Amino acid sequence: MIVDCAVYEDGCRCEGDLPLAEAGQAAQRDGSFVWIGVYEPSEDEFDAVRREFELHELAVEDAVNAHQRPKVERYGDTLLVVLKTVRYVEDEEDLETGEIALFVNRDFVVTVRHGQSELHDVRLEIEDRPDLLRFGAGAVLYAVVDRIVDDYEPVMEAVETDIQEVEHDMFSPHRSNPAERIYTMEREVLDLHRAIMPLGPAIDRLARGQYDLIHPELRTYFRDVHDHLLRVAGRIEGFRDLLSSALQANLTQASVRQNEDMRKISAWVAIFAVPTGVAAIYGMNFDNMPELGWSFGYPSVLILIVVLCSVLYWRFRRSGWL
Amino acid sequence: MIVDCAVYEDGCRCEGDLPLAEAGQAAQRDGSFVWIGVYEPSEDEFDAVRREFELHELAVEDAVNAHQRPKVERYGDTLLVVLKTVRYVEDEEDLETGEIALFVNRDFVVTVRHGQSELHDVRLEIEDRPDLLRFGAGAVLYAVVDRIVDDYEPVMEAVETDIQEVEHDMFSPHRSNPAERIYTMEREVLDLHRAIMPLGPAIDRLARGQYDLIHPELRTYFRDVHDHLLRVAGRIEGFRDLLSSALQANLTQASVRQNEDMRKISAWVAIFAVPTGVAAIYGMNFDNMPELGWSFGYPSVLILIVVLCSVLYWRFRRSGWL
Amino acid sequence: MIVDCAVYEDGCRCEGDLPLAEAGQAAQRDGSFVWIGVYEPSEDEFDAVRREFELHELAVEDAVNAHQRPKVERYGDTLLVVLKTVRYVEDEEDLETGEIALFVNRDFVVTVRHGQSELHDVRLEIEDRPDLLRFGAGAVLYAVVDRIVDDYEPVMEAVETDIQEVEHDMFSPHRSNPAERIYTMEREVLDLHRAIMPLGPAIDRLARGQYDLIHPELRTYFRDVHDHLLRVAGRIEGFRDLLSSALQANLTQASVRQNEDMRKISAWVAIFAVPTGVAAIYGMNFDNMPELGWSFGYPSVLILIVVLCSVLYWRFRRSGWL
Amino acid sequence: MIVDCAVYEDGCRCEGDLPLAEAGQAAQRDGSFVWIGVYEPSEDEFDAVRREFELHELAVEDAVNAHQRPKVERYGDTLLVVLKTVRYVEDEEDLETGEIALFVNRDFVVTVRHGQSELHDVRLEIEDRPDLLRFGAGAVLYAVVDRIVDDYEPVMEAVETDIQEVEHDMFSPHRSNPAERIYTMEREVLDLHRAIMPLGPAIDRLARGQYDLIHPELRTYFRDVHDHLLRVAGRIEGFRDLLSSALQANLTQASVRQNEDMRKISAWVAIFAVPTGVAAIYGMNFDNMPELGWSFGYPSVLILIVVLCSVLYWRFRRSGWL
Amino acid sequence: MIVDCAVYEDGCRCEGDLPLAEAGQAAQRDGSFVWIGVYEPSEDEFDAVRREFELHELAVEDAVNAHQRPKVERYGDTLLVVLKTVRYVEDEEDLETGEIALFVNRDFVVTVRHGQSELHDVRLEIEDRPDLLRFGAGAVLYAVVDRIVDDYEPVMEAVETDIQEVEHDMFSPHRSNPAERIYTMEREVLDLHRAIMPLGPAIDRLARGQYDLIHPELRTYFRDVHDHLLRVAGRIEGFRDLLSSALQANLTQASVRQNEDMRKISAWVAIFAVPTGVAAIYGMNFDNMPELGWSFGYPSVLILIVVLCSVLYWRFRRSGWL
Repeated sequence: MIVDCAVYEDGCRCEGDLPLAEAGQAAQRDGSFVWIGVYEPSEDEFDAVRREFELHELAVEDAVNAHQRPKVERYGDTLLVVLKTVRYVEDEEDLETGEIALFVNRDFVVTVRHGQSELHDVRLEIEDRPDLLRFGAGAVLYAVVDRIVDDYEPVMEAVETDIQEVEHDMFSPHRSNPAERIYTMEREVLDLHRAIMPLGPAIDRLARGQYDLIHPELRTYFRDVHDHLLRVAGRIEGFRDLLSSALQANLTQASVRQNEDMRKISAWVAIFAVPTGVAAIYGMNFDNMPELGWSFGYPSVLILIVVLCSVLYWRFRRSGWL
Repeated sequence: MIVDCAVYEDGCRCEGDLPLAEAGQAAQRDGSFVWIGVYEPSEDEFDAVRREFELHELAVEDAVNAHQRPKVERYGDTLLVVLKTVRYVEDEEDLETGEIALFVNRDFVVTVRHGQSELHDVRLEIEDRPDLLRFGAGAVLYAVVDRIVDDYEPVMEAVETDIQEVEHDMFSPHRSNPAERIYTMEREVLDLHRAIMPLGPAIDRLARGQYDLIHPELRTYFRDVHDHLLRVAGRIEGFRDLLSSALQANLTQASVRQNEDMRKISAWVAIFAVPTGVAAIYGMNFDNMPELGWSFGYPSVLILIVVLCSVLYWRFRRSGWL
Repeated sequence: MIVDCAVYEDGCRCEGDLPLAEAGQAAQRDGSFVWIGVYEPSEDEFDAVRREFELHELAVEDAVNAHQRPKVERYGDTLLVVLKTVRYVEDEEDLETGEIALFVNRDFVVTVRHGQSELHDVRLEIEDRPDLLRFGAGAVLYAVVDRIVDDYEPVMEAVETDIQEVEHDMFSPHRSNPAERIYTMEREVLDLHRAIMPLGPAIDRLARGQYDLIHPELRTYFRDVHDHLLRVAGRIEGFRDLLSSALQANLTQASVRQNEDMRKISAWVAIFAVPTGVAAIYGMNFDNMPELGWSFGYPSVLILIVVLCSVLYWRFRRSGWL
Repeated sequence: MIVDCAVYEDGCRCEGDLPLAEAGQAAQRDGSFVWIGVYEPSEDEFDAVRREFELHELAVEDAVNAHQRPKVERYGDTLLVVLKTVRYVEDEEDLETGEIALFVNRDFVVTVRHGQSELHDVRLEIEDRPDLLRFGAGAVLYAVVDRIVDDYEPVMEAVETDIQEVEHDMFSPHRSNPAERIYTMEREVLDLHRAIMPLGPAIDRLARGQYDLIHPELRTYFRDVHDHLLRVAGRIEGFRDLLSSALQANLTQASVRQNEDMRKISAWVAIFAVPTGVAAIYGMNFDNMPELGWSFGYPSVLILIVVLCSVLYWRFRRSGWL
Repeated sequence: MIVDCAVYEDGCRCEGDLPLAEAGQAAQRDGSFVWIGVYEPSEDEFDAVRREFELHELAVEDAVNAHQRPKVERYGDTLLVVLKTVRYVEDEEDLETGEIALFVNRDFVVTVRHGQSELHDVRLEIEDRPDLLRFGAGAVLYAVVDRIVDDYEPVMEAVETDIQEVEHDMFSPHRSNPAERIYTMEREVLDLHRAIMPLGPAIDRLARGQYDLIHPELRTYFRDVHDHLLRVAGRIEGFRDLLSSALQANLTQASVRQNEDMRKISAWVAIFAVPTGVAAIYGMNFDNMPELGWSFGYPSVLILIVVLCSVLYWRFRRSGWL
């Protein structure tokens, strides 16, 4: 589905809707470029775009089928940029990913969105910056990449919060076993790693001016994005290290708790063993057991049992077993 | 066994069967190349091929003996490409590997297959793309490599599914111990790693145009394959990380379950200790034990025992020990 | 808040306060530069500075918002240097971090401080070294970086001390479980790692003379700082390895202690089982049990029980179970 | 001990024994080279060789003292190549290592063997390949390196077999604890790693033609050896990963088995507790216990005990505890 | 404290003591250099040296304050080389480290020793090699570095021996828990790593002739030292891997031993439960218990108890629980 299609000239959007069929021609004009936004296009729909701008078959294949790695690749004069969008769904404690592919050329930008992703805001925002738009189609690429990378930040925050919850669980006295949650988070962080990490060197190439397409003034902007990405990457690495340590620490906690439970159980077993042992002695059938004849024998023994149990209980308490 | 032998001219297959003895001459013609497919050749069979195309003795040794690492190597004007094919056998939860070696030259392609591997489909498919075949023997190489790398995808899916099963097992309440399965999968993924990883840099060299033999237009295609390989490689790395964490998480689960079992057992032991303890007291032989004379003494004690056991049971239940 | 604003000429500070509005002009003079110190500036405050020195919008954004990675980046003729300060708070066993951003140009230095950080001493110190200040604004950069890196040293010492305490705990006979502390320290060291590590390559670029701005004579000084950073980095890596081993060693200790507790408990259970067993035998109701009639039967059995328990106690003691 | 000393001319061995004293002169002749084989030489013996061929003192020191890392180093016009031979001793499940040092020059090859190592076969084999020997002394180097690297293969097979045995042990129901064996194998594989890994880059330098001494035609042969080494290196890395996982999996198995044993023990304890508990009740001394007077009371209780024990036994059986 | 101060000319030491004040001038003479040895100098003492040879303030700071990383750095025409000496103290199973800093110039060598370190022997030894001394001050550097690196070897041997002891402990039947020792050794090896590893690349730069100061003929000698360092580095890496595995294997052993202890304890508990259970039955008060009236009832039951216990003991023994 073609969502929006407009010509930008001298940093400003030309009024009026542009039919796809005229886009190719409009794009040729000097100092202007066309931006077409497409959302999960059918093969036919996209074929029209492909023919209009003479896109490479392999690039089109990558853009139409989602599930690519993030990357920046040159096909002739056109750059194909693939980006992963990530959103954290609070309720399910789960990550939702989307994909945006951009064809960027001196004459046009085609953005192809898949799944959870939004570009309308980005378009409005960049249209407010004619100083950047004047640098051509690369400015659109910058705007999109910058937004997507900015959107990684709240995901990082959410994961950080989750990890702190898990840590709290792990060392809380409630004896929960967050092993499954830690493991699930490791998986999630791994997915983040796969979605974000490969983008770093790609953006770096943009920032270092490897593609003429990107106006030199824009390089500083891409370097800023790259720096942001490095920060995100550093946090992801940190998450991996933390979760791996958490798994190990959690095992220790499980082991320590097992010991505590065992000591508690054993203490009670020992306390329970006292009445049996004492009573067994006075259950013996010796003829000559003077205590049996005493009139206070029975209550004395009962008291003895209570005292012994109390002493044991108190000692276990003191040594922290109960 | 020579499976197929044909001349390709201007992107099209020439009609008719080509005897091996004429292949060398046919290959010399301008703008044409010969493609010979061989399956697990005997030394003698392959010696004929070797002499026809003057292949290097070491290259032939590598191609005829399977168990090579995947690689791309130049022997004079000829490239030797070794690839590993992988297939997942559902029933045995096992990987089946094969090997394909290609000798690629401006004039000819010789494909040598070992074990589980198929090239007939690839031949039909590439014969449908005269636009690519026109770029010469490199197109055949592309077709073969592309197919083999595409075939890694379902294997990745199968391994992913297995890992999800293991995860489910691990955290299920059925107390299964998937340690052996996790370990076996680690071994499998290690084999995949060994079979696939070294291919990456080799394909990259093809994509970056290090070999003149590969027509410049084909480089983009090899880059696409390389990108696909990177994706596969990323997943394999992910599998390794996941399985390593799974082993650790599984140990924690085993430890936590052991604790649960121990608490359950101990709770029952404590409950069983009650009748013994109480009865032991009334088994004492004191002369003066008024309860013994009461007519409701015995039933009262029985009721006491039942009540104490119930209280214990209820408390253990509440604290999650039973 | 603008804290200090001064002109330096020929290595000496010019007397008198310099209003911001004149700073730009003063900076232009040959052989002199302006140093402006700002602390957590509001957007408006900093905008004045930005306009005075024509700083790049992205650089300003990085400097005003804290939470950047340490880095050295060139924006036109101006270097933006971001540094993390770290301080160890003894009482809370916690790290406090701050951030200092520097804009360095041939004509000016703007230092922007956030959070816990101090530059007044640095200013005094470098003003005592006219031989260095003569090399221009780079000398100020050196003074700031050198101080911040020097301040990492006491933090390293504090972490080292904490690790030694944890080690002592871990192997002490007091059966403490420092798992949580080890884990918390791992987190802390990870934060240190993130705050310090990226600085290394950045300082290295300064030392290798990649920026003309830094006077060649100053390179040796930056190399010295780089060397210092490498030492700090080496210790951080060491901390990570140590803490990871400590987590594992602590698990072993927990497991060994569990075994010791279990043996101790079991030993006492065995000792308690003796009176019950012996007394049960003499509680049997056989008609013909000669011991029952003996007048010293009862005391003998009591003595027997005490002797048996003592023997058991002594044996357990000897084999180290009690 | 000088084992063999011969002149090779035009790819063929010259008839007759060559005294060491004439070797230097014979080596000077055009198109010919001398090959001297030495086995664990005394300092004096080797000093004669050293003087004859003017070998560097440091190179001689390395060659005469074993315990070097494998390496290829140039001393003036002479290459010193140090190789580690490895053999697996089936009976002791142990690795035996040896060392071969080669001095290779346009004019001569001196091979110095230490410990378990064999070169006679290599000499015979390479004498059968005059086409290679014609390329000069480098051909001898190739022959030696190729053989040594080929000999790593059976060692890899043996280690693989051992690992499979350990895996079988680990997951067998026989409750063996192969921890020590896994650890010992880790040590062994580490030794292999140290003996083999450094050779890779060294051979690579030979293959890439860094030394003029190696005839260009031979480079392909060294590349083949390098490829073989990479395969061996890949397996060694695999072994390390596997053994590290095995250690972890083994710990899980130990933990799971402990749980099984504990449940089995506890089940029996529970079954044993039944007769004591029931009997204790009928051992109470209440006057009014009608069952005591019944003539079938005693057998009924015995039957009750047997029934209760059987029910428990059956339930434990069913839940897999026994 | 200035320990020794001498002029070397043409590879030989000039007779007579040289006062420091004349050293600077003596050093200027062609083909000669001065070697001054200093031991833990006070600031004043060293200041004289600094002024005499115009050493850089930062270099002096590094040389006078110990606790540097090993490094090779150029300050103008002078190299500053910092080395760590290591010695193993048998009695305390501990490492003692020292530090040696060298200022090397075409005209002089200043060696500054800290802590445990010895250079007198080195001086005597190198004075015996006029062939090397003729290459100038670099020869002294070589002699010092070579000795220090040679001295790492016995430390490696001592650590190796310690590791073997720990391994023996770990798998011995004496149930020792070497966790603390393994951990302490990990710390030690980490210290070694920090003291030795950074030296490798530094020496490599000397060997590859990056500094003109080092006579080309000496490069081979530094390469030899570098090779030696690589060997040491390989062993240190090996130690780290081994100790990390040892920690894991030790945990498994602790777990397995715990299981063994638990089985042994439980077996005895089961054996003790027999007399109680049997006796409880004959302690019941049924009127109709014929066995009670038998004259051999009591001894029969005693025999029964002994037989049952023996059977249990024998079975536990057979299944390896006792």
